[in-house]
Amino acid sequence: MSRIAYVNGQYVRHADAAVHVEDRGYQFADGVYEVCEVWQGRIVDMPRHFDRLDRSLGELRIDWPMARAAFEFVVRQVVRRNRVRNGLVYIQVTRGVSRRDHFFPPEEVAPSVVVTARSTSTEAANAQAAKGISVVSYPENRWPRVDIKTIALLPNVLAKQNAKENGGKEAWYVDTDGFVTEGGSTNAWIVTRDGTLVTRPAESGILRGITRTVILDLIQKEGLTFEERPFSLEEAYDAKEAFVTAATSIVMPVVQVDDRTIGNGHPGSVSTRLREVFHTATDFQMV
Amino acid sequence: MSRIAYVNGQYVRHADAAVHVEDRGYQFADGVYEVCEVWQGRIVDMPRHFDRLDRSLGELRIDWPMARAAFEFVVRQVVRRNRVRNGLVYIQVTRGVSRRDHFFPPEEVAPSVVVTARSTSTEAANAQAAKGISVVSYPENRWPRVDIKTIALLPNVLAKQNAKENGGKEAWYVDTDGFVTEGGSTNAWIVTRDGTLVTRPAESGILRGITRTVILDLIQKEGLTFEERPFSLEEAYDAKEAFVTAATSIVMPVVQVDDRTIGNGHPGSVSTRLREVFHTATDFQMV
Repeated sequence: MSRIAYVNGQYVRHADAAVHVEDRGYQFADGVYEVCEVWQGRIVDMPRHFDRLDRSLGELRIDWPMARAAFEFVVRQVVRRNRVRNGLVYIQVTRGVSRRDHFFPPEEVAPSVVVTARSTSTEAANAQAAKGISVVSYPENRWPRVDIKTIALLPNVLAKQNAKENGGKEAWYVDTDGFVTEGGSTNAWIVTRDGTLVTRPAESGILRGITRTVILDLIQKEGLTFEERPFSLEEAYDAKEAFVTAATSIVMPVVQVDDRTIGNGHPGSVSTRLREVFHTATDFQMV
Repeated sequence: MSRIAYVNGQYVRHADAAVHVEDRGYQFADGVYEVCEVWQGRIVDMPRHFDRLDRSLGELRIDWPMARAAFEFVVRQVVRRNRVRNGLVYIQVTRGVSRRDHFFPPEEVAPSVVVTARSTSTEAANAQAAKGISVVSYPENRWPRVDIKTIALLPNVLAKQNAKENGGKEAWYVDTDGFVTEGGSTNAWIVTRDGTLVTRPAESGILRGITRTVILDLIQKEGLTFEERPFSLEEAYDAKEAFVTAATSIVMPVVQVDDRTIGNGHPGSVSTRLREVFHTATDFQMV
């Protein structure tokens, strides 16, 4: 089966999925995106992702490309047409196609929409989670509006590539005060030696992760101790556990930060438990 | 005549010029660009633009998509096939098409190349220059690597749109120390009350503009007084003249900064002179 993508009103073969070279997403990074997990044939927390998409579009003053219900239908269709049971669905909206000019284009220019989906291996992800990952710290060098989920991801690309070249799977941004902000494409968490879960408030310098929000619910449910505050890289080095969260990795244990082993070098019990029970706290949309 | 674009090895109708939705330029802003002026049927300072492209590609570790001579041939061809005598040629290179993943793609993924050209009205530009433009200050909020000419231009889009909505044609970024860094798509200059030209060193917080470099040559030729140093927004308010430089606007006089009139509110003599003699200091490539 060839993969199918949705591009500006049409379902096309993935190989043929193309946008004009003067799409503002291509020349100005003038667009936003969302990635939802597909789990057992259902889309995880789509309403929350669409709520965040609404906020991102609003911050950039990009119009909704279609009614929300119609857009949700398209997303479900793309998942269904690609027969994804476990995987991801990717949603991108840009300010549309117009002759290159930094200023917003005329009112009549419609936003561009791309939706793609693909299967991922649950076994491979679980095997990775059983081992844990290494993260590599990186000086925070992004613009301050990282609360908007934009496609201007070049800084994240470079930070993550640096992590990879230093044996890691994720970068942790560290601000000038020595505090971890977030990962290159994940939110960052630690569990302190006294068992307290810590993550940075979404109000300052990070994206408000959907998976992060689910974890906050789970923490309540599970009766865990939690502090929402910045933590330093030094504190992370000495943590009992660490993990990252994102729709693409759910809860992924971190067993090394830079050259420092976290805890006993194996995924911690809190991280592992949160990963196991994750889908008890999510909402599902049938495709 | 329909316009022609070059896209990944082919000359195509501009209307059909498309790239894959998983081009990393579209999903990650993972690419760089150049814009050259076309003046009287000749490409202005192409070697300097290609030198800067080489630096941008090197900083991001994107391979040259083809030999430089072949690339220069393509650029000349696109100008010729569009019969541009006065206008612009736009060159973009991205890290290529690969399944979405922040990390650099496998070695075998080739960079993507797009070249477009279009005519612009010399009369309209000169009419604008005769009047001058207003600029609107904006807090510097870009990442520190603005020395690389990347397509991650969303911050610039927002700053320039803010300028437009406040009656301006350009934004001037102001850093936390109160100094002007550069424009949203131009370099920023003032002429002080004692006749000294001032612009910020290219070593800190700005792009090394090609047009800026030509102006430096012209300043020598014309025997003008010059200081390469940061200037504050307050100093700009009190300047005798101000102007911006870029391949798209050459030397464009600034007659207002925020709500402050510059000089007598008309283009200054130094700015006007530099605009007039600009092409005596440039290099040309026949198309």
